[in-house]
Amino acid sequence: MSTGSCDHTIHGAQHHNAWDNALAPALEVESGASVEFEVVDASGGQVRRDSTADDLVALDFTRVNPVTGPVSVRGARPGDVLEVEVLEFEMSDWGWTAIIPGFGLLADAFPEPWLKIWDLTPGGPTARFEDGIDIPVAPFPGTIGVAPPEPGPHSIVPPRAWGGNLDIKHLTVGTRLYLPVGVEGALFSVGDTHAAQGDGEVCGTAIESPMRVALRFRIRRDLTLARPAFETTRAAPTTGEPGAFVTTGVADDLMVASRQAVEGMIEHLGRVGGLDAASAYALASVAVDLRIHEVVDVPNWVVGAWLPNGIVRR
Amino acid sequence: MSTGSCDHTIHGAQHHNAWDNALAPALEVESGASVEFEVVDASGGQVRRDSTADDLVALDFTRVNPVTGPVSVRGARPGDVLEVEVLEFEMSDWGWTAIIPGFGLLADAFPEPWLKIWDLTPGGPTARFEDGIDIPVAPFPGTIGVAPPEPGPHSIVPPRAWGGNLDIKHLTVGTRLYLPVGVEGALFSVGDTHAAQGDGEVCGTAIESPMRVALRFRIRRDLTLARPAFETTRAAPTTGEPGAFVTTGVADDLMVASRQAVEGMIEHLGRVGGLDAASAYALASVAVDLRIHEVVDVPNWVVGAWLPNGIVRR
Repeated sequence: MSTGSCDHTIHGAQHHNAWDNALAPALEVESGASVEFEVVDASGGQVRRDSTADDLVALDFTRVNPVTGPVSVRGARPGDVLEVEVLEFEMSDWGWTAIIPGFGLLADAFPEPWLKIWDLTPGGPTARFEDGIDIPVAPFPGTIGVAPPEPGPHSIVPPRAWGGNLDIKHLTVGTRLYLPVGVEGALFSVGDTHAAQGDGEVCGTAIESPMRVALRFRIRRDLTLARPAFETTRAAPTTGEPGAFVTTGVADDLMVASRQAVEGMIEHLGRVGGLDAASAYALASVAVDLRIHEVVDVPNWVVGAWLPNGIVRR
Repeated sequence: MSTGSCDHTIHGAQHHNAWDNALAPALEVESGASVEFEVVDASGGQVRRDSTADDLVALDFTRVNPVTGPVSVRGARPGDVLEVEVLEFEMSDWGWTAIIPGFGLLADAFPEPWLKIWDLTPGGPTARFEDGIDIPVAPFPGTIGVAPPEPGPHSIVPPRAWGGNLDIKHLTVGTRLYLPVGVEGALFSVGDTHAAQGDGEVCGTAIESPMRVALRFRIRRDLTLARPAFETTRAAPTTGEPGAFVTTGVADDLMVASRQAVEGMIEHLGRVGGLDAASAYALASVAVDLRIHEVVDVPNWVVGAWLPNGIVRR
């Protein structure tokens, strides 16, 4: 489907810069509905095509990482899972990548601002970094989540059990993200679209790019999740890998996040494979892969435990 | 080539259970030589085909993780890099996976011993876990390294800057591992062969299996490395991925290991792509993937930074 054929559209003006379950929904939809979101870039429009590295020093951080929404999914209740199917992206023709002083895995070593403006060809397979260096384009939303049950505003920067700034590069077209629902209606929002990113997003930014994204929502009551999980049902566009079911850990310590991801995988293997916990733990040791999805969205990092499709055929 | 056609053979009886640069070489070879190693399983022969979980409680840990060697490579000097090309494996027909009390990512949650004996078909593409659950077989050496320059015996359990118990599942046939040389002759040893493993090796064991491995050594003076790196020149057998150049971090904290891996990648991108450090850091953020290769070999964990082949074509 094209993004223009969704059931609903939410424009970029309807954005917010904190997670807050008191926000009024921009839209209310039924389970099964598709929605097209217009997403503002992660600077909230502060970085433009003609920006320079010097402009980064003046960034207003209260305006960064706006998310479009929230969408209330009628009937969603705490304890449910919200399935979010990634349908399509309509890309823009530019993006930016920055080293922002004080931010990123090696912030101490890179105190100076640095900025690259990318020319993107919508639909083009790669983006040029420099002559002889091209990056496969694979758009995804960096920030995607639902409102936390705890009252008041919560910073948009760190991801949480309810999703948010997960920066999981694998949420490309065809992926289904599963989010625990924390409040009535779920109150889903999306933003921070990226044209490409490495696992980790080590300097703190990806190819940040405004774009439209089409998503479909389904309430799932056959699943119980403590943290986000996702499923890729076809080969990832940039790697040729088979699909996978992925559980995540989201914590301020990579070891804790690794443990959470493996605990989620043990539950998953019990659910789909009928394995007792010890067998599932051992199977994870010989067949499940740990990846660091982001390590820069202070203070919470995201680790994924990947079960390749085809291992469990029950 | 077959393992039988190597220039030299070292038998499993010539093994040691600690890294120590005072050990006499089992063999001395020239740069360019191939060597076939007979590798004892990680229990040092204590786990057998007829073992049960109860036998794990009586394991003698002074005998675990033997490595075959050491091989002295004539002319290798501290500051050089030893290239180790993985040529071939001759597998045995069985293996084991265990949950050993007190060991593994979730040791607190799994206090009971657990053991599975695997039937392996040498050359077979998969190994059966249970009906309907099969694991792709992709043999590699879990422990592969050179002697540290610091005198005295060093535990075989943790990996170090000189390699060792890296448990990097990607060191399959065709891979070239690059190890910093710490002492004259390098003093290389290999052991802990695995028929399959997930990134992380979360329960602490893989499909542990005795086998023969054929390796080729080359002294490289065009490289300088602080920690191991490796290069896969063809698709990984289990994923269909393109090859990659991978730098590693080896540290007792996953965040520190992540930083080390990215620092190594920035150096690599400078060397092969001519990029200044800031550009390399930004390129890593949009195109390099962080993976956790092992998180159980106390106290040191291994993180890899993966640059897919085809990104930098200079």
